[in-house]
Amino acid sequence: MEDQVEVVARAFVEHYYNLFDSNRASLSLYQLSSILSFEGQSIIGADQIQQKLSGLPFGQCQHFISTIDSQPSVVAGSIIVFVTGSLKLLHEEHPLKFSQMFQLIPTLDGTFFVQNDIFRLTTLESWLLLNNPSLSQPK
Amino acid sequence: MEDQVEVVARAFVEHYYNLFDSNRASLSLYQLSSILSFEGQSIIGADQIQQKLSGLPFGQCQHFISTIDSQPSVVAGSIIVFVTGSLKLLHEEHPLKFSQMFQLIPTLDGTFFVQNDIFRLTTLESWLLLNNPSLSQPK
Repeated sequence: MEDQVEVVARAFVEHYYNLFDSNRASLSLYQLSSILSFEGQSIIGADQIQQKLSGLPFGQCQHFISTIDSQPSVVAGSIIVFVTGSLKLLHEEHPLKFSQMFQLIPTLDGTFFVQNDIFRLTTLESWLLLNNPSLSQPK
Repeated sequence: MEDQVEVVARAFVEHYYNLFDSNRASLSLYQLSSILSFEGQSIIGADQIQQKLSGLPFGQCQHFISTIDSQPSVVAGSIIVFVTGSLKLLHEEHPLKFSQMFQLIPTLDGTFFVQNDIFRLTTLESWLLLNNPSLSQPK
């Protein structure tokens, strides 16, 4: 059981960040009930979350994953995934450190959707860069 | 509802880290089913978790909280709490950055227990210090 949780978590992380980095607008892993906390801002619902992610003030980016932790959650088949890593923006030399957690809920067709998603940059420098796009222009 | 979640999350964070910093051995917030992932090590059950936390290779410490995010989870009344901050060990000049998440489940007597707890240090320097106690001796 523990192994299955880890396998799903790793596959999810690979899928999620690949999609995020290659085609952010196509991240259709959320549902109506989903909640995203992005740098302290709370967004509810698949459409609103997709809009938020598509509208982030940077274009192409690349996630580098440092650690993946996973645990079974309370509802049968649900999984908590906890990720740390860094995020490199195009034309930006230094990657931004981040931590993120997801709660994945199984769907009737055998896949998962993201019910809970919390994202935080973990250094002040990261925060300044992401919140002041003028700082992340080509140098 | 959203506000209530935030109020509980903030009260929990204050309670948890105060207890951790003042009397780690008394952290009785876990139950039989609880799971802790501590720097990649998985521990199940209240007694085992308490043993792990009491046996960490450092004495007195102090947590400084940078951010607290919270969301309602799936089971009625349950809450996800996501914390970033830093941890200062006694005699150690530089604090260690960490990220941590909890899933809190309501109990019949109106309090909460920790079902899921995932802790990660988020810098290599942090990891080296916590995993090599000889580095954190008085200088």
